[in-house]
Amino acid sequence: MIEIERKFLVNSDAFKTEAYTSYTIKQGFLNSNKARTVRVRLKDDKGYLTVKGKSTANGLSRFEWEKEISQSDVEALLPLCEPGIIDKTRYEVKSKDHIFEVDEFYGDNEGLVIAEVELRSESENFEKPNWLGKEVTGDIKYYNSQLSKKPYKKW
Amino acid sequence: MIEIERKFLVNSDAFKTEAYTSYTIKQGFLNSNKARTVRVRLKDDKGYLTVKGKSTANGLSRFEWEKEISQSDVEALLPLCEPGIIDKTRYEVKSKDHIFEVDEFYGDNEGLVIAEVELRSESENFEKPNWLGKEVTGDIKYYNSQLSKKPYKKW
Repeated sequence: MIEIERKFLVNSDAFKTEAYTSYTIKQGFLNSNKARTVRVRLKDDKGYLTVKGKSTANGLSRFEWEKEISQSDVEALLPLCEPGIIDKTRYEVKSKDHIFEVDEFYGDNEGLVIAEVELRSESENFEKPNWLGKEVTGDIKYYNSQLSKKPYKKW
Repeated sequence: MIEIERKFLVNSDAFKTEAYTSYTIKQGFLNSNKARTVRVRLKDDKGYLTVKGKSTANGLSRFEWEKEISQSDVEALLPLCEPGIIDKTRYEVKSKDHIFEVDEFYGDNEGLVIAEVELRSESENFEKPNWLGKEVTGDIKYYNSQLSKKPYKKW
């Protein structure tokens, strides 16, 4: 599957009251190389193993492969991950036809809040909520794989 | 699961007539870092994703986690792997209470044949078949993850 996403900073907490769901995410990377990332994730009590390819030059599209795994599989694999396990709460917010995933980070990335919207094509338009800030699509330092190596607090 | 294995070179083709099964293996690595490897494998028409941790100091034990995936998953993931896809035929040979897995490599590793035996404990004894050569347990250059980066033909 090819994933098309745009990524933004968030300039207020207003998204929290608009969210229709939220859950905790704990994740690590078995590989955070730019050419391919292998991510282990616990989303509340559900586990996932996700492989992502290299982004296209504009940073919009990326090959993604995901497989559900058990919570005990996640617990076996997290200790093998590179240092820098990421902890965050994800809020899902509906804005007209689109869903924004807003991640509030903890630990070494405390203070960082990022919103992502998935699109069906690179040129698709979408309604921008008031709390949406500056676009950071394609800026590698906001990739979760980079945030685990060089967290927000150290910028 | 912890895997305990000893690895040997092979000094004759005699193992082929003793084998009770054989199959082709095609595999690549999404990560071949020494601390953790993520392997994508096609074994005839069955797919597997395998994560291995760091070996113990003596090179005998290693954490291993494996999940079956579809052939189409393998075909989606192999192009994302690091350069150096490995092609080999694996022969399984019974020797008293143990099974030896003997890998005959092709492509850039043509000429290399390696036998592995899995043990229940690090001190377990086993019968050595006549065709078994020098022990190479713990020698990193014989790891498949290393053979894909620095193949036998370039030694």
